[in-house]
Amino acid sequence: MIVAKVVGAGGYGGVGIIELLTGHPEVRISTLVSLSDAGKSISEVYPHLEGFCDIVVAEPGSPEAEAPADVVFFSTPDQVGMKLAHAELERGAKIIDYSGDFRFKDLSAYAEYATRIGKNPEHTSPELLDESVYGLTELHREEIRHARLVGNPGCLAVSCILGLAPAVKNKFIELDNIICDCKTGVSGGGKKPSASFHYPARYDHMNAYKLAGHQHVLEVERELTVLAGEEARVTFTAQVVPVCRGIMSTRYARASAKITVADLLEAYRSFYKGSAFVQVYDRSANIGSAHVRGTNYCKIIVDFDERTNCVRIISHVDNLLKGQAGSALQNMNVMFGLPETEGLLSVPKYP
Amino acid sequence: MIVAKVVGAGGYGGVGIIELLTGHPEVRISTLVSLSDAGKSISEVYPHLEGFCDIVVAEPGSPEAEAPADVVFFSTPDQVGMKLAHAELERGAKIIDYSGDFRFKDLSAYAEYATRIGKNPEHTSPELLDESVYGLTELHREEIRHARLVGNPGCLAVSCILGLAPAVKNKFIELDNIICDCKTGVSGGGKKPSASFHYPARYDHMNAYKLAGHQHVLEVERELTVLAGEEARVTFTAQVVPVCRGIMSTRYARASAKITVADLLEAYRSFYKGSAFVQVYDRSANIGSAHVRGTNYCKIIVDFDERTNCVRIISHVDNLLKGQAGSALQNMNVMFGLPETEGLLSVPKYP
Amino acid sequence: MIVAKVVGAGGYGGVGIIELLTGHPEVRISTLVSLSDAGKSISEVYPHLEGFCDIVVAEPGSPEAEAPADVVFFSTPDQVGMKLAHAELERGAKIIDYSGDFRFKDLSAYAEYATRIGKNPEHTSPELLDESVYGLTELHREEIRHARLVGNPGCLAVSCILGLAPAVKNKFIELDNIICDCKTGVSGGGKKPSASFHYPARYDHMNAYKLAGHQHVLEVERELTVLAGEEARVTFTAQVVPVCRGIMSTRYARASAKITVADLLEAYRSFYKGSAFVQVYDRSANIGSAHVRGTNYCKIIVDFDERTNCVRIISHVDNLLKGQAGSALQNMNVMFGLPETEGLLSVPKYP
Amino acid sequence: MIVAKVVGAGGYGGVGIIELLTGHPEVRISTLVSLSDAGKSISEVYPHLEGFCDIVVAEPGSPEAEAPADVVFFSTPDQVGMKLAHAELERGAKIIDYSGDFRFKDLSAYAEYATRIGKNPEHTSPELLDESVYGLTELHREEIRHARLVGNPGCLAVSCILGLAPAVKNKFIELDNIICDCKTGVSGGGKKPSASFHYPARYDHMNAYKLAGHQHVLEVERELTVLAGEEARVTFTAQVVPVCRGIMSTRYARASAKITVADLLEAYRSFYKGSAFVQVYDRSANIGSAHVRGTNYCKIIVDFDERTNCVRIISHVDNLLKGQAGSALQNMNVMFGLPETEGLLSVPKYP
Repeated sequence: MIVAKVVGAGGYGGVGIIELLTGHPEVRISTLVSLSDAGKSISEVYPHLEGFCDIVVAEPGSPEAEAPADVVFFSTPDQVGMKLAHAELERGAKIIDYSGDFRFKDLSAYAEYATRIGKNPEHTSPELLDESVYGLTELHREEIRHARLVGNPGCLAVSCILGLAPAVKNKFIELDNIICDCKTGVSGGGKKPSASFHYPARYDHMNAYKLAGHQHVLEVERELTVLAGEEARVTFTAQVVPVCRGIMSTRYARASAKITVADLLEAYRSFYKGSAFVQVYDRSANIGSAHVRGTNYCKIIVDFDERTNCVRIISHVDNLLKGQAGSALQNMNVMFGLPETEGLLSVPKYP
Repeated sequence: MIVAKVVGAGGYGGVGIIELLTGHPEVRISTLVSLSDAGKSISEVYPHLEGFCDIVVAEPGSPEAEAPADVVFFSTPDQVGMKLAHAELERGAKIIDYSGDFRFKDLSAYAEYATRIGKNPEHTSPELLDESVYGLTELHREEIRHARLVGNPGCLAVSCILGLAPAVKNKFIELDNIICDCKTGVSGGGKKPSASFHYPARYDHMNAYKLAGHQHVLEVERELTVLAGEEARVTFTAQVVPVCRGIMSTRYARASAKITVADLLEAYRSFYKGSAFVQVYDRSANIGSAHVRGTNYCKIIVDFDERTNCVRIISHVDNLLKGQAGSALQNMNVMFGLPETEGLLSVPKYP
Repeated sequence: MIVAKVVGAGGYGGVGIIELLTGHPEVRISTLVSLSDAGKSISEVYPHLEGFCDIVVAEPGSPEAEAPADVVFFSTPDQVGMKLAHAELERGAKIIDYSGDFRFKDLSAYAEYATRIGKNPEHTSPELLDESVYGLTELHREEIRHARLVGNPGCLAVSCILGLAPAVKNKFIELDNIICDCKTGVSGGGKKPSASFHYPARYDHMNAYKLAGHQHVLEVERELTVLAGEEARVTFTAQVVPVCRGIMSTRYARASAKITVADLLEAYRSFYKGSAFVQVYDRSANIGSAHVRGTNYCKIIVDFDERTNCVRIISHVDNLLKGQAGSALQNMNVMFGLPETEGLLSVPKYP
Repeated sequence: MIVAKVVGAGGYGGVGIIELLTGHPEVRISTLVSLSDAGKSISEVYPHLEGFCDIVVAEPGSPEAEAPADVVFFSTPDQVGMKLAHAELERGAKIIDYSGDFRFKDLSAYAEYATRIGKNPEHTSPELLDESVYGLTELHREEIRHARLVGNPGCLAVSCILGLAPAVKNKFIELDNIICDCKTGVSGGGKKPSASFHYPARYDHMNAYKLAGHQHVLEVERELTVLAGEEARVTFTAQVVPVCRGIMSTRYARASAKITVADLLEAYRSFYKGSAFVQVYDRSANIGSAHVRGTNYCKIIVDFDERTNCVRIISHVDNLLKGQAGSALQNMNVMFGLPETEGLLSVPKYP
């Protein structure tokens, strides 16, 4: 059995991985750590876990919190994982960090990211960046297989990159202005109450936010640039709509070659051959966010409008699963040589 | 492996049992039957099932539909199961029917039920009523163990009876006017669109309905009367609120004895000892409908107000699981000698 | 023109009265006061007001905040109005306070109320309680007409009392245990974000709260006791459901006399003759919370079950209007000799 | 007083104009016509109207339905208004039709529109098209002033055109591929229940639809082409999100000139000078759909990204008001020489 520790167990990212690990046949959770919920059973904090997982949450820095584990999930705010990673690596753990701490190898790229979220632009563990791997499994499977340290991608980045990678790789689209119009569910904002996510202010309300520049676009441009072998530029709009779980991203780009929808379908399906969690459709598919809710799937609709020479890609993920804890577990499976889908195929419930 | 057939596969009750059976280690679904969806893959009808269950739906009356199975779930409207049950029993199947067809042994009780829902008061298979068993597992476990034919209870009835049974059994409350104030989620109304469940008319709307007499109250009174050994009368209010899944029932009754909250807690916990899916709390518990969503649990809060001599019981179930498909699978487990919780403990996802 | 000041302009209670006053032909808002929003235009805080009301919010204690007005609305937390009332009365204002500060004439009743909400049980302006009037317009219209100081009722209290007053007054029901089962929308909890009203935690969730004793029950029992001329006792359950606006209260009581639904209808309609905002129906009415949303109406369904001898009363109000700002304006109209409905009849929008 | 008739009174478009007309000081509703609701009071169909408008609905073709009026609103499905318009014009009425019947002067454009919605491509009253005027008030005010017959625009078209007109008129953007990414509330789909708008299927669900080509794009391209004086091509994505009221449209286009955000702001404000219902912001504005809910406003955010040379325009309207009944009343005001805002400035209620 793989022994797992979750740091930041009290947030939605934490409870997401607890839910998945509890149902994983090869894993045993040994330790949950949380500042705000220390001393309570996790099922007191999240009553839906009663009978499923009743572990008492340890305080950060306590001996319980520092017990060794085979894998540690840092579901912590930015700039926490970078401070705790060394100690866990020394104890022999493999690490999956949810924040931006290990998504960038380049210090100036990290600095730009940190600045966008109002954090200190300096990375406190730059020596770890070299070995860290960007945790978008479908693109970095081989590196992840040998990694000790994975930077789990941003939820909007997962959505945008998966939807664009095959088109970029196949040089189907122009790279000077790829448009990503993203609609995200509210749970993406986390567990902490705020004016914007207060029920009366949110229940019948949609709006764009961070118009000056969302931090996830940096990962998207970096990954697309690497795939293309030349600079890719993204116009990115983040919008919140009153769903709990789900990201619907609609992307637009000028076709750079003479293509058809059949070309797109073939390229996408070929690119994701061997990637169990990506499913590709044409525009006749009747697919929406509720159809991936509770799953690790990414469902992608590809389309091309000859009249405007515009490639249009629409996709759906559950922001808390493929967009966060699901990708984290998928990465763990790869890091430990397990089947990639292990623990990720429990049947979702609808409606 | 137990071979299972689901008749009425296209509704919420059908998809609910399909989801559960797909994850059940001892069951293989052989056949799905549905009038409206015949010829399509079930994952075309319910895209969230893609990759989990892709069986093609058979037409009622077709050879595929009539293939033998070990267990048949009738997730069909009232007065369908009573017509199809004989043939399935003859093919050797055990049957669990979701409708009111097999909830009543008494023909006049059935007639009253049928009249309330605007159906023909005559039962077409009265000879089957004798052997049929009312499928509230916690109360009829032993009979269910030996049954070929189970009438799965109504969702509001499950909620009301579980919350009242220990108080009635222990003679803690007066029986002349037990008040059941029930708030149900919208999925209880099924998959068929209607004016009352149209999103714009429902999203910020709550209302009482069927004030002249809801059909589920008949089961509730019958079961409570049997438990008490004397007539129990219920005032019942059904109300719809804009949640998808969940029934919150609040019950009030005059205490008939000198009791305390501690007495209630002890009596309830003792009554449900051995019933894995019932959990009992006092009023300090911070429990709500989302905490049972996606599970087969019934969470019950017991309370007593000395000042008004009023026993108050609040409970939560997921109307599509403990209120329907979950109870159905629980009954199947009992009928086939499997552990009662088999296939019913997949970890729910929150929020 | 009546010159109006709103203290606590930044909360839902404040914005509610601003909306109504802006549309009132006889009132001009001169001053908005708010601690958190001082210095901003109110339409910066509430963008829906842009073009309707763009007054800059004054800081408490500033000269602008202390300018005299004909009427002052205290939409402030408990124990603020009691401190500011004297100064406003001296400046010649009439006052309507939303909190519990002026709902009780009896100091020990106030102390019990304050204790329930975790506040200091001592009232700092007891000398004002004698002249203060409880602001449920339908019951205290004549006293309100001559009042300088009105304690606006609690939202759940408005709902419960209006639904029970005629039955109690006519001695139709027993008084030892009147059951009030209330379901409230989320906006009743105000503007301040909290874990319980965070969108992901609330959107598909219902729960009971304050089971140990809600503070509004004290007003309800007091008013019913006065109406009955003998002690009335209430069992009260407050429950939150995911609607924004609306209170649905269902009340149950044993009939104390031989009555019929026709008796109830007649008694209720007679009691509310002359009360434009109360509408009475029998159980065939298809009425719900969205039908009073955005209005000052209270819609009441009366019912009687002979079999259980139980009177059942269901009613709907918009908690932010008849439950708060609407009642406040209705009281203002009465205090200033205006038609009671002035400014309260703008057509609601549906859906 | 202007005497008004509403044909199609039972749908959301009908009830929307009834609400507005009821509050309009210069209008009296004389007649409501509806096939499905004939014989009932409109407040029986829509209980929120009780006390505001209780007119009994007339049957189409009945003498009451054919009584003359000064203005007739056809809130009817496509191809109804074109059949009834002649008779109303002969009776001296001015007409505002909600459907596509009078949005196109060109028969082949109409045929394309009709084909997209699965209707007969032939127009039955082509002789009326010449005098009909496209009812986007801000663009066609002068023609509307003299019109007898106005084709009210599609809700998504209102949103898209208002957000793009100044940029197109000022030749700020390239016209070969203007991207309109639209998110619409559910009420845009009307009152009729359907699988897609059934509460359990819609409450936590978002999806794109009509990817093969939405009919509203035709109006958008036509209007933009006229403004530009050369062909404009639009890539259009319609998406439904679980809000009741609201359209958020995000538009992207390549800048065709060297521009700044200041240029955009100035051009937009100048273009809409004199248009009371359009408000323009830069990207620092915190604006969303709930801030226009219940109003006739269109709030527009203009933005420019130098790095990708991309103009981005985000706007919000209430689809049932500025997107439908509000524009209709605005047109009526212009047609009758009344102030354009008359009856459209009742204060919205939030949250």
